[in-house]
Amino acid sequence: MIAANNPSLKSWIEVSGDSDFPIQNIPFGIIKTGRRQPRMATIIGNTVIDLSVLAELGYFNSVNMDTSVFYMPVINEFMALGKETTRAVRNRISAIFQHNNGELRDNDEHKTQILCDVDDVQLLMPVAVGDYTDFYSSREHATNVGTMFRDPDNALLPNWLHLPVGYHGRASSIVVSGTPIHRPKGQQMPAGAEMPVYGACKLLDFELEMGFVVGKSSQLGQSVSTDEAEDYIFGLCLFNDWSARDIQKWEYVPLGPFLGKSFASSISPWIVTLDALDHFRISGPEQKEPEVLPYLKYEGDKRYNIALEVLLQPEGGEAKTISRSNFKYMYWNMCQQLAHHTVNGCNFNVGDMCASGTISGTTPDSYGSMLELSWRGTKPLPMADGTERKFLKDGDTLILRGFGEKDGLRIGFGEVSGKVLPAT
Amino acid sequence: MIAANNPSLKSWIEVSGDSDFPIQNIPFGIIKTGRRQPRMATIIGNTVIDLSVLAELGYFNSVNMDTSVFYMPVINEFMALGKETTRAVRNRISAIFQHNNGELRDNDEHKTQILCDVDDVQLLMPVAVGDYTDFYSSREHATNVGTMFRDPDNALLPNWLHLPVGYHGRASSIVVSGTPIHRPKGQQMPAGAEMPVYGACKLLDFELEMGFVVGKSSQLGQSVSTDEAEDYIFGLCLFNDWSARDIQKWEYVPLGPFLGKSFASSISPWIVTLDALDHFRISGPEQKEPEVLPYLKYEGDKRYNIALEVLLQPEGGEAKTISRSNFKYMYWNMCQQLAHHTVNGCNFNVGDMCASGTISGTTPDSYGSMLELSWRGTKPLPMADGTERKFLKDGDTLILRGFGEKDGLRIGFGEVSGKVLPAT
Repeated sequence: MIAANNPSLKSWIEVSGDSDFPIQNIPFGIIKTGRRQPRMATIIGNTVIDLSVLAELGYFNSVNMDTSVFYMPVINEFMALGKETTRAVRNRISAIFQHNNGELRDNDEHKTQILCDVDDVQLLMPVAVGDYTDFYSSREHATNVGTMFRDPDNALLPNWLHLPVGYHGRASSIVVSGTPIHRPKGQQMPAGAEMPVYGACKLLDFELEMGFVVGKSSQLGQSVSTDEAEDYIFGLCLFNDWSARDIQKWEYVPLGPFLGKSFASSISPWIVTLDALDHFRISGPEQKEPEVLPYLKYEGDKRYNIALEVLLQPEGGEAKTISRSNFKYMYWNMCQQLAHHTVNGCNFNVGDMCASGTISGTTPDSYGSMLELSWRGTKPLPMADGTERKFLKDGDTLILRGFGEKDGLRIGFGEVSGKVLPAT
Repeated sequence: MIAANNPSLKSWIEVSGDSDFPIQNIPFGIIKTGRRQPRMATIIGNTVIDLSVLAELGYFNSVNMDTSVFYMPVINEFMALGKETTRAVRNRISAIFQHNNGELRDNDEHKTQILCDVDDVQLLMPVAVGDYTDFYSSREHATNVGTMFRDPDNALLPNWLHLPVGYHGRASSIVVSGTPIHRPKGQQMPAGAEMPVYGACKLLDFELEMGFVVGKSSQLGQSVSTDEAEDYIFGLCLFNDWSARDIQKWEYVPLGPFLGKSFASSISPWIVTLDALDHFRISGPEQKEPEVLPYLKYEGDKRYNIALEVLLQPEGGEAKTISRSNFKYMYWNMCQQLAHHTVNGCNFNVGDMCASGTISGTTPDSYGSMLELSWRGTKPLPMADGTERKFLKDGDTLILRGFGEKDGLRIGFGEVSGKVLPAT
C-alpha cells in the first residue's frame, strides 16, 4: 500500500468527518492569492497548503526532485516528473501533516507562510489541457438516449458493446469551477420548420461526468495496453459537459457533436490522484455478451465506487439535489478507454484529458442530464421555489459533487459549479 | 497593398520560375541544423533564411518588436505579436532581399551565417497546435460521400447547406511533412460478419485538405464575425488528413470520426501568410439556395484559387499525379468556418488549427481521396509500375502540392509528403 493511503492516519490539521479532503486524499491544484503568481497547492480539510512555500522552506529536501514545478501555473510539469516522484511528494506531504509530526506543526512562523483557509484563495484551472476526449461509456445513459431518440428495443447502436465510443472535444473551453457560463447561441432547426433559425439555445443541459488527466506521454504509433494504462492516468476530477441540445441535434449528423458542446466544459479544481482512490475500486461489469476483443480485456478491479450528486440552485433560491448517481455505472473503464484510444497509435501528451461521458444510474433519480431527468422535457423537475425545470434557465447554478466512502474513510472531489448567464 | 506583395519585386537570391517561394511569399517555419536549437526561418527560392541570426545581426532593429520570438521552437509567439508586427517583419524581410538592396547582399560574412540551402536544414513542425478542427466544406466531396454511402438523390444531409459541418480532431498527432505514418490498427466490422475484428487497417486513405492557423486569441463567450475573421487567420498550409476508412466506418455513428483519423495528420512545413495569398482571391459561390443565415454572410472575395495536386509514389517507383483539384472548391470559406465555430462563444488560442475537409473538384480526376478516386474501390488506379491502387499500400508515399499563379506570379506551399509504414 502507498504510505499516504493508510486509513488510520490523522492529521494535526482539523478535518471534519464529512470533508472530502482528509490526509489520505492530498489532491493537487493551483491557487492564487493577492498579487502573487499562481502556484501549486494541496488541501487538508479546509486548509490549503502552498507547496511552493513548503518547498522554499526546505520541507521537500528529502525528495529527489526539481521543486521548481511547484511554482508553475499548472500541474503539468509536476505530473511529468512521473509517478515515482509524485508518489514520493504525496507520501512526504502525508508525513509532514501527520498528527505526531512536529516539524511544521510546532513552527508557527512557517505555518503562517504555508497554510491558509480555502476561502481565502482563488482556485485556478489546474491543468493545461492539450487534447480532450469525451467518451460515452455509461450503458444506462446510452440506453436512455437510444430509447428516446431511436428505438427502445434497439437502444444501443451496434458498435456500443464492442468499443468505448468517444469523440474529440474542445480543450480551449474547459474552465475551472466557479466560471460562469454564457448560454450559447447558434443554429437550431425547430420542429416542423423548413429553415433553421439562429438564436440562443433553448435546451441548455449539463452532463454529469468524471474526467481523468494523463500524466505520462506516449509516442505516436505506440499503443498503451489496459495493463499499462494506470501508469498514464495521474488523477481525476468532476466534469460538467455543458450541452446545448437543440444546437447539437441539428449539427451532429454525420460528424458528431461540435458547437453543442464546445462553448464550455467545467471541472473541479483539485485533481485527486488515482492512488488516493485505491480504496474504492470495485470489479465488473461482466463483458461476456458480447465478449470484448482481447485488446480491451483487463485484469483487476478497474471501476470505482464514487457517489455522485447533482444540485440545481435557481437564482437566489435553494440548491436542490436533482440526481444521485455513481461512477460505478461505467461499462467501459478508464483503462479500456485509454487502450482503445491508443490502439491506432494516437499519442498522448501530459495534460491531455478524457471524460467519461454522462454517468447515469439505473433509476430515474440517478440520471446524469436534464435530458434524461426530465425525459426530453416530458417530466419537468419541481424546484423548491415552485418553478419547474425541463432544461437549465438563466441564473441557475449547477453543482456536481462526488466522493468515495469506505470503512470510515471518505475521499472526495469537492465540487464543480457553474452559473448560467444569459446569452451575450 | 502590402509592400511585400508587389508582383514586380525581384530578389538578389536566385528564384526559378517554378518556385513556390518567390520574394512575394515569405512564409514562416522552424528549422534545425546540426546541434543548434530549433528556430524560426523563412525561404526564398531554395535558400533558407535564419531569422534568429538575421535578428542577432541587427537587421530587425528598425522593427518595433521583441525579436526573441525568432528563437522559439514554434511560430506561435511570433504570430501572437499581431498582424501589425508580423506584417512589418514580412515587409522588412522583403526589403532586405530586394535585388537593389545591398545591405546584406554585399556582406558575405553575414550571408554565410544567415543563408543556407533548404536541403541542408531539417524542417520541423512549425506550430504548437492547441485545438484542431476539421471541416467538411467541399460540396463536391460531401456529395460524393453521400452518393456512395447514402442516397444519390439526397446526397447532402439536411444541415449541409445551412452550416459548415465540422468536428473536433486530434491535435497531438499532427506531424510535419516527411514524418512516416504507421498503418493504424483497430476494430473493423467486415461486411457480413457478426462480430468485429481487430487488425491493421485495410482501407488506408489520404484526404487532400488545406489548414489554416489562428494567430490571434478570442475570449470564451466571444463570437468572431465573418468581417473580423481574417484578422484571426495568420496563414495556411497543406493538410493531409490520413483516414482509416474501415475503422472510421465501424466507429463513427453516432459521435463522429475518432480513431479512424487520430493516428496522424500531416502538414507542410511553411506557413504561408494569408497576406501572401491576396492575389489569388476569387468570389463565390452563390449561397442563395438556400440562403444562409445572416451570421454566415460575408463581403468580398473569400475563396482562393490555389491549384492542388496529389501524387502517389509506390516504394521504389515513380510518383504519379493521381488528382488535380483546387482550393476554390469550397462551399464554405475560412471566414464562415471561423464565424460558425465561434458563434457559440467557443474560444480560440494562438496556434489553433482548422482544416478545410477534403477538397474535391467536379470531375473524377479532381477528387481528394482514394475513396472517391477509386469510387469505393470499384475503379482501381493504375500505377506506373503496373500495380493498382484502391487504397494506400505499405511503402506508398503520398504527396500533396499546392500553389496559386496569376499574372506571372506563383506563390505556393511546397509539399507535404508522408510514407506509409507497415502496422507496428
